[in-house]
Order: sequence, then structure tokens, then C-alpha cells
Amino acid sequence: MNFSERLRSVQATTNSLLCVGLDTDARLLPPHLGSSADAVLEFNRQIVEATHDLVSAYKLNLAFYEALGDRGWPMLRNTLELIPRTLLKIGDGKRGDVGNTAEHYARSMFDDLGFDAATVNPYMGHDSVEPFLKNGQKGVFLLALTSNPGSRDFQRLRVAGKPFYEKVVSSAKKWNTGKNIGLVVGATHPKELRRIRQLVPEMPLLIPGIGAQKGNLMSAVRFGCDRKGISALINVSRGVIYASSSRDFAASARKEALRIRDEIRMYQTEFFSS
Amino acid sequence: MNFSERLRSVQATTNSLLCVGLDTDARLLPPHLGSSADAVLEFNRQIVEATHDLVSAYKLNLAFYEALGDRGWPMLRNTLELIPRTLLKIGDGKRGDVGNTAEHYARSMFDDLGFDAATVNPYMGHDSVEPFLKNGQKGVFLLALTSNPGSRDFQRLRVAGKPFYEKVVSSAKKWNTGKNIGLVVGATHPKELRRIRQLVPEMPLLIPGIGAQKGNLMSAVRFGCDRKGISALINVSRGVIYASSSRDFAASARKEALRIRDEIRMYQTEFFSS
Repeated sequence: MNFSERLRSVQATTNSLLCVGLDTDARLLPPHLGSSADAVLEFNRQIVEATHDLVSAYKLNLAFYEALGDRGWPMLRNTLELIPRTLLKIGDGKRGDVGNTAEHYARSMFDDLGFDAATVNPYMGHDSVEPFLKNGQKGVFLLALTSNPGSRDFQRLRVAGKPFYEKVVSSAKKWNTGKNIGLVVGATHPKELRRIRQLVPEMPLLIPGIGAQKGNLMSAVRFGCDRKGISALINVSRGVIYASSSRDFAASARKEALRIRDEIRMYQTEFFSS
Repeated sequence: MNFSERLRSVQATTNSLLCVGLDTDARLLPPHLGSSADAVLEFNRQIVEATHDLVSAYKLNLAFYEALGDRGWPMLRNTLELIPRTLLKIGDGKRGDVGNTAEHYARSMFDDLGFDAATVNPYMGHDSVEPFLKNGQKGVFLLALTSNPGSRDFQRLRVAGKPFYEKVVSSAKKWNTGKNIGLVVGATHPKELRRIRQLVPEMPLLIPGIGAQKGNLMSAVRFGCDRKGISALINVSRGVIYASSSRDFAASARKEALRIRDEIRMYQTEFFSS
């Protein structure tokens, strides 16, 4: 099964578009856990336990694990082991390098750590992306239009009358022979999200920027989904995992994840029920 | 001392523009060393021992260390400890993410691992680069025009009559208030290297693509240096470290590094002696 089908299948089974971002910052843990690497794992364990029936995927941002030093990589691996096999695991490292090097990144992300998909920065072009595409079951989310303010610096520059990120979208279409490419499009850009979905009616979209970054959830669902109301992965990181910093942080995370999942379902019903 | 000054100072002291890339692939080690993580360290130790008086910097590509799994990060750290303090250590990870995340990458690269400079992918714009710039002693090499074939897919697209990578160059100039920004420009693009050096007469340039990627060394020196004949870091990875796969690999690496360093000096004399 190629990655696009896998995503649709998991989202149909879980009936959830929610992806929780385990961007666990050792300095922001609930005080009673401390701030050691073990505390990060304990935090992740409780978050996954409290939310795994509400999501279709977890996204791990590698920066937060690299910041743990030598403990980071084992911690990444230990956290991945906590996630049920029925859900998707996304490695958010935004890697991208010449082909010979990208091969090493791909091998590390997919074969060694066992992620189901990875975010990849497309700036270095086709040979930097290709090594990630070899295994059709594994997905690649190319950065198209990111959720941050800096997305205007380069991504929106106009090339032959169109914004630069549309060149990424059209390259993604062209390279997508294995049906395992998706795009990252920030929820902070609803109009552009709508346009991109028109350009790639069936491609998986990973949509960050809900919560701390103030993207609009309704638009993310309405404009981000395919015509069946799925194929969009709506990521929330800080908004869920730091819902509370007290002893009941896991229960609070569950409450917030449940609220968001159900709000998404409401929009799915509103915009996609036949 | 800001990073630009540091680079000039180290290059004046070492009288070398050569940067050796420790892109050590565990699968390509000389057979007598085996292929364990320990073998990678032993290989790096012998390469550094054999070449450290010929270079101004070493560049470690993080992909090759991540590919070692849990041993990767300690191996990165152990390799960095082998490098004399008088030389520059460049972390080639091509990271780039939203500000909150980029901060973690910057902390990991500069404060934890102790790299002197890092390569950064500019695609996500200013807030993704800014956290790397805070400490003026530490350098940031932004990807402008990379050495690989895929550089034509996006980097050369025309924006308002100019190639896209020139937008990166002009942003780099604008953001360079701390004089610690440099650019990555592949030796495979001599004409464009010349043009970029005209646009940024004093900025450090990291120039990969010599050797396996067939870039031209004479052009790299002639067009990559500032008007004093320095501020260019000319990187060779595979061409030096895999010069031989026999028991004398370190001696062969030295021989090749010496040959390249001296060829660079010859071009410096030819084009920059007053």
C-alpha cells in the first residue's frame, strides 16, 4: 500500500485527522516531573497513553530530541516505541541534502528509526528528495508554504506570475509517481491552502500552525481535506501537550485533543457529508 | 571577534583555505578497520591526525552520524574532540525550522556540540535563521546555490529578472548585522560564484563540490575568495578521506589534502599576490 492509501486507511479507521506533535521541550515539563531526559520519556508516555485513541498520527520534531544531546536519539527511539502500530509516525526533521547524503538521512528516518513519513525541505531539488521516495509505503511531506512569518521571505516570491511555493507543488505532482508525496501547508494561510488543494486534489497535506501559531481550524479542515473529507493531517503540538503544567497534564492534554478532534469532525460533517 | 573575522584569522594563521569533510560512511571504511561505530571514530582519528596541519576547518555532515543510530551523537562529539581548537568546526546539517524549533537546533549545534558554524537552509525565511545568528562568534552558512544537479529545480528560477538564489544573497546581506553570515555556493557553478562574490565582497563562502562532484578548483579560488585571497572555505570530502581504502588510507588522505592545499596556494599566488 502506498503512503497516500495508508494515510486514508488510518484516517478512516481512527476517524480522526488529528496529529499530535510530540515537540517535548525538557525545559517546559510539568515541574513535578523534573527536566531530565527520563522525564521527557515519562511525559511522552503519559501524553501518548492519554491521546492515542484520538489521533491518526504523532509527529516528532527532531530538534527537540537533538537538544537532549547524546540521550536524544535513544529518546526518539523509545518514544516511537510508545506509539501504537496502527497509527502513523511522522519524523519532522525538514532534512534535505545532495543525493549521497540524503540517502543517509532517509535510511536513518525510515529504516533505522522506523518513521512512516518524513518532512523534507525541497530547496535543493530533485536529487535531494529522491532518496526519501524509494519506498512507496513511506511518505515524504515537502515544505510548500510553512506556517511561520518567514514564509513570506522566499516562499511567496513570484516566479513567472505565480508564487514560488506553487513551483514546489507542481514539482511534487511531477515527482509523485509512487503516490507517497505530501505537502506541508500552514493553517495560517487558508486562502493558499484552498488553492493548493485545488492543484493536488488527492495528495496528503500536513497542516501545522493550529494553536500557538493561531491558524484557523475550520479553514484547515474545509480547505485542507480531499473531496472525501480526509487526507489532511492537522497537527497541534504545544496546544495539546502543554494544555496544563500541573499533575493532571495528561488528562488536560486528552481533554484538549478530544475537543479539537471533535471540532474537526464537526467541520467534516458540515463540509463533506454527502 | 565575529565569525567573519575568525575565519580570516584562522585562514591567515593556517595559510590554508582547505576544509576537509568528515562525511564518514561506516560502509566505506578501509576493510581492515571493520564497519562498527568504533571503526568510524578510529578512521576519523587517523584522518584528523594526518591532515590537521593542512586545513583551516573540518566539516561534519550530520547525516553520516545520524545513520549510526544511537551511537551517532556521541560519535559526533568524540570526533569534534579530535579537532585542534585552533581550527574551525562546521556542522553541516542544513537545518531550518520555525523560530521556536530553530532555537533548539542552534542550541544543540553551537552550545551543546560546540560547532563554530552551521549550514542552514533559508527556505523558511528570517525567523528560521535568526536563532542561529544570536552569537556573533558562531557562523551561519546559508544555502544559496548548492553543488548538486537539483540546484536547478528551484534555486535558479527567475524572480523579477534575477535568479532565486540572488534573493537569498540579498537577504543574507540584509540579515548580516552581526557579520557572522556566510553562503554555500557550489564549485560546480563558477560563473555564478563569481557573480555572488561581486555581490558580497567580504562574506565567508563555503564551497563544496570539488572532487566527487567535479567542481573546478581554480575557479573556486579565483572567484570564491575575497580581494585578499581568503574568506573562501573550499571543502573536499570523499576526494580526501577515501583517497585510498588500504591500510595506508591516512597517508593517502594526507597526500591528497597536501596536493589540494598547495594547488589552492598556487592559485592564490597567481590571482591575489600584490
